[in-house]
Amino acid sequence: MTGERAIYLRDIPLDDAWAAFDAALEQAGLDGPFPAEDVPLDAALGRVTAQPVWARVSAPHYHASAMDGYAVRAGDTLGATETQPVTLQEGTPEDRARPAWPVNTGQPLPAWADAVIMIEHVQPLGDGRLAIHAPVAPWQHVRPLGEDMVATELVLPANHALRPVDLGAIAGCGHAAVRVRRRPRVAIQPTGSELVQPGDPLVPGAIIESNGLVLAAQVRAWGGEPIRLPPVPDERAVIRAAVERAAAGADLILINAGSSAGSEDHTAAVVDSLGDLLVHGVAVRPGHPVVLGMLHVQGRRVPAIGVPGYPVSAALTGEIFVKPLLARWLGIVPAPPPTIEGELTRKVLSPAGDDEYLRVAVGQVGERVWVTPLGRGAGVITSLVRADGIVRIPRFSEGHAAGDRVRVLLTRDPGQIARTVSIIGSHDLTLDLLAQFLAERHPAYRLSSAHVGSLGGLLALRRGQAHLAGCHLLDVDSGEYNVTYIRQYLPDAAVRLITLAGRVQGLILPPGNPKGIRGIADLARPDVRYANRQRGAGTRLLLDHLLGQAGLAPDQVRGYEHELITHLAVAAAVQSGQADCGLGVLAAARALELDFLPLAQERYDLALPLEHAAVPQVAAALDLLHDPAFRAAVAALPGYDISQMGEVAAEIRPAGSKPGI
Amino acid sequence: MTGERAIYLRDIPLDDAWAAFDAALEQAGLDGPFPAEDVPLDAALGRVTAQPVWARVSAPHYHASAMDGYAVRAGDTLGATETQPVTLQEGTPEDRARPAWPVNTGQPLPAWADAVIMIEHVQPLGDGRLAIHAPVAPWQHVRPLGEDMVATELVLPANHALRPVDLGAIAGCGHAAVRVRRRPRVAIQPTGSELVQPGDPLVPGAIIESNGLVLAAQVRAWGGEPIRLPPVPDERAVIRAAVERAAAGADLILINAGSSAGSEDHTAAVVDSLGDLLVHGVAVRPGHPVVLGMLHVQGRRVPAIGVPGYPVSAALTGEIFVKPLLARWLGIVPAPPPTIEGELTRKVLSPAGDDEYLRVAVGQVGERVWVTPLGRGAGVITSLVRADGIVRIPRFSEGHAAGDRVRVLLTRDPGQIARTVSIIGSHDLTLDLLAQFLAERHPAYRLSSAHVGSLGGLLALRRGQAHLAGCHLLDVDSGEYNVTYIRQYLPDAAVRLITLAGRVQGLILPPGNPKGIRGIADLARPDVRYANRQRGAGTRLLLDHLLGQAGLAPDQVRGYEHELITHLAVAAAVQSGQADCGLGVLAAARALELDFLPLAQERYDLALPLEHAAVPQVAAALDLLHDPAFRAAVAALPGYDISQMGEVAAEIRPAGSKPGI
Repeated sequence: MTGERAIYLRDIPLDDAWAAFDAALEQAGLDGPFPAEDVPLDAALGRVTAQPVWARVSAPHYHASAMDGYAVRAGDTLGATETQPVTLQEGTPEDRARPAWPVNTGQPLPAWADAVIMIEHVQPLGDGRLAIHAPVAPWQHVRPLGEDMVATELVLPANHALRPVDLGAIAGCGHAAVRVRRRPRVAIQPTGSELVQPGDPLVPGAIIESNGLVLAAQVRAWGGEPIRLPPVPDERAVIRAAVERAAAGADLILINAGSSAGSEDHTAAVVDSLGDLLVHGVAVRPGHPVVLGMLHVQGRRVPAIGVPGYPVSAALTGEIFVKPLLARWLGIVPAPPPTIEGELTRKVLSPAGDDEYLRVAVGQVGERVWVTPLGRGAGVITSLVRADGIVRIPRFSEGHAAGDRVRVLLTRDPGQIARTVSIIGSHDLTLDLLAQFLAERHPAYRLSSAHVGSLGGLLALRRGQAHLAGCHLLDVDSGEYNVTYIRQYLPDAAVRLITLAGRVQGLILPPGNPKGIRGIADLARPDVRYANRQRGAGTRLLLDHLLGQAGLAPDQVRGYEHELITHLAVAAAVQSGQADCGLGVLAAARALELDFLPLAQERYDLALPLEHAAVPQVAAALDLLHDPAFRAAVAALPGYDISQMGEVAAEIRPAGSKPGI
Repeated sequence: MTGERAIYLRDIPLDDAWAAFDAALEQAGLDGPFPAEDVPLDAALGRVTAQPVWARVSAPHYHASAMDGYAVRAGDTLGATETQPVTLQEGTPEDRARPAWPVNTGQPLPAWADAVIMIEHVQPLGDGRLAIHAPVAPWQHVRPLGEDMVATELVLPANHALRPVDLGAIAGCGHAAVRVRRRPRVAIQPTGSELVQPGDPLVPGAIIESNGLVLAAQVRAWGGEPIRLPPVPDERAVIRAAVERAAAGADLILINAGSSAGSEDHTAAVVDSLGDLLVHGVAVRPGHPVVLGMLHVQGRRVPAIGVPGYPVSAALTGEIFVKPLLARWLGIVPAPPPTIEGELTRKVLSPAGDDEYLRVAVGQVGERVWVTPLGRGAGVITSLVRADGIVRIPRFSEGHAAGDRVRVLLTRDPGQIARTVSIIGSHDLTLDLLAQFLAERHPAYRLSSAHVGSLGGLLALRRGQAHLAGCHLLDVDSGEYNVTYIRQYLPDAAVRLITLAGRVQGLILPPGNPKGIRGIADLARPDVRYANRQRGAGTRLLLDHLLGQAGLAPDQVRGYEHELITHLAVAAAVQSGQADCGLGVLAAARALELDFLPLAQERYDLALPLEHAAVPQVAAALDLLHDPAFRAAVAALPGYDISQMGEVAAEIRPAGSKPGI
């Protein structure tokens, strides 16, 4: 292409971005609901009515018996009493006086009849004669024509998403099909020479094409019809040709990624060359390098959205731009997510110029609801997967202090929050297993664990932010685990200490131990890079203890300040060459097929404030410690000892409390 | 079949019914989650994980640059300052000292590099030399291997319904497919010689097969796979053969209907002959003739549910029995419906022995939420369609008094309740049009109208139960419409009276007027049956006025006590021969192609308490009275006059209030 304009990324506020997009949609006549199509009723679930549904026939379309019994003329039954029954005769008026005609529920009344007598109230006398002992009122036990719907009546309005019962009503008033909005067709064009398909072999730099999958599922969930296109390489002309081709059959095009302003970012230029580049950069976080444009292709206007490549940004761009647009085209207002209010567990600083979508975990302990900010990296899709909701922090707010009440837009059934076991503290692999077994044994319950280290867990218990804390804190003076620390950090609580497992800690090493690390003293070698755990982690305290024993100071350890928050993260750092060793559990080393130098055997306990002992999901989770299948699964983890699993290691009562209280 | 047992219908409590069903499911090994199957990720939306998803590869699976810039060794940048820049050289360590290697976001770092400098912080000096003015820390702007997921880590638990972002996470950690629960296959067998397909021509007695459609859509919405079978006639042997055939390929069979104990009710006997009849009759209302059984077919156990034929009963049987069973087989706990609390607008008597599922409309006026019971007929599917929710009245409760606070299980987005215009009062066809236009022009808003007659509407306004009341109340002394009545019924309110339309009232007659009805005096003829409107209806007051003018008393009119609540219901009664005439609007007569004898021109107004004038959805609805398309639609109704539409007929202030207040 020649005459190409320079493209700059300039973040504008979300409202301004929508205003620019709206104006272009309006100009193109694409700002309102879509045209209609007729679909058969058995394919109409979830579709949106494009016009009102009026009854074509009445329902019932005849006077129907509401009971099994006899159709009669009410006038013929006048005067019947217990002592002076009236006698009716089975048959029609042509051949009988006082006729009675047998009908089952739902059958039509003969033209001459105007009431039904229940079969239980009729006494057969033989010879087709029937005695009745009470008169009936006109229209008794009759469902009159039109009781449910009268022909020409409004049955359903336009812009209504069809539910199962709606389909029954539409069929019941005589329609075989229903006029609904055409589903918006959304073409999804992945771009990037580095893309490979899920499950394909990976070389460094290869990126699994997962955003297309997420965007397609979002489009489907929001009532559109996704068209997933094969990825194209990062070549402007190739992308341009692909987008132009895709635009011909689509109502909206999502181009992913290349929406920023780097040397391989072509989306903005492609949109500019095929129509109007309206917005390049939106002040939202995550997700700011968004492109909004209106293509002019073969005489049609087709809106295009350049979706950022980071998975969290891509998913949020779907939520922020695609979902409202599809709703407008379908003529619906999406149900707002359920919300919950809670207290922030820690401070959140937010960039002043951006609307931030903060992923959070939500925990309920007793009556209090706690909101914990999760990782904010745009590349960490598990932060979105594990999130219980989103806190929107508007631009020009600078964030929130710990303890602030915030409103969470939940991405999970609110009822599930109240049925979740909240474990905060040290990371252990068995917590993943416990979550898995709880989900399988008790589908109503869920276990959420946050990894803030053993001390952090005890502090969370003190603040009432968790049901349980996982900890492995060695008192170097007494050699005892956890008890000393609980007395110190939870002086006013009655706490039961329940052993989860014994486990082996040691140095995780690359396969073959290339640097020949033989013990803790080697951590002082200038050629050895260490991967540490965060402050307050039991494993970090163990390292400090081992360093002290070896007469070493932290500043002699290269990488001491390199903090990671799980055993597996330490193992991954060693596997990838980021570090030469790190202290962690044997199971983490084995999981990534690494070498291991054992240094200590320790006990990992769950601290349970007794006030939470009767919470049903907590009790259910602790019961699993006695479940043979769970015990076997933990025992199968390398270096884990289940001999004390589920035992009460100690009952710790507040100083000064009387026994039994 | 020989040796057939007698089958009796005996209602048992819901809990007992479930207990019997549960025991049989457990014995058949069908009480827990289903086996698993692998599905590709692009077909997995909404499916339920059958086992945990563990990361197969780490994500990222290499150290990735988080920025566009240069990969460097952090150690090489030490000492760089604004005044004393460090010079790096583009290239690799083999050919350069202090190497710097260009990387884009997402690209892998070379093995020797451990940090990235953003391109904005690098000053090219030419000759491949690059000046930097600040040192970088190790791992700055690097997304380390495993930042998102470390191989072997738990990504998702079992029993989790997959959302779009979950699919991204599963793909991102190296899976192309996911192991999910097999979808339960639910065979739906309609029975009934009278069944016809939606849209087919109708003869009296023909019943449109709509329940199969509803049940299939429910099964699909709840995660199962419906198998709709063609209807079979009401012959026991034929039904038995069809059910036996269907059982071979299904996990659950729904037999609809014939679940009661009449002469054409074969479901219980068929279930009994093919296995164990566990329950016949459940004390729920509507829906009591439910059959629960366990078939033994070709060595397999297949649960069967006999679903009652009335459409409301059928849909509720789905909710009460099918939904929980599918959830259990899928290993999920369905999200409970949102609930809202409100005050009952009228008394509800409930049969003491039954669990009742009462359909209700929910309206919010100001801060108060009002719950209005809807029709309780099991045949009226529109009561379920129009319902905003269900109030469960447990057995042994006798019901509720007006004003009682009840909890409603909502079948609608709770937000929609707060955005609904609530009109209570007289029925007019233009209210249907108003609802339709509001839904089209403002998809966020909804209009709900309850038909309780003109006086009932004013009483509802007085109690604060509606935003607007529709009324057409002639003061026979003054000849004025509505004002007198508002002063009488709403003495303390400031009310604006806005004209909706003028309309013609008269006698609705069968085509050709076979009884030769010429005027109101003919209503006294003994051969003329009249269809009346309910007490408090403006049309009934008009009748009384016309009768008085003619010197007639109500008891001279045959059918005076035959009360219907809409003009269309009156027209339907005339069309069907239930009555020979009835007072109503011309448009209702025309809608059903009936004759009409005009008797009066009247004005239909909307009464608006001024306190509701600023409610956004109310203002939006009233604005439509000036919308040319809406006016044209009303003008097209026979007998409607729009010349005063939208005009303020009167502003009525409480007696004693000062002007302007």
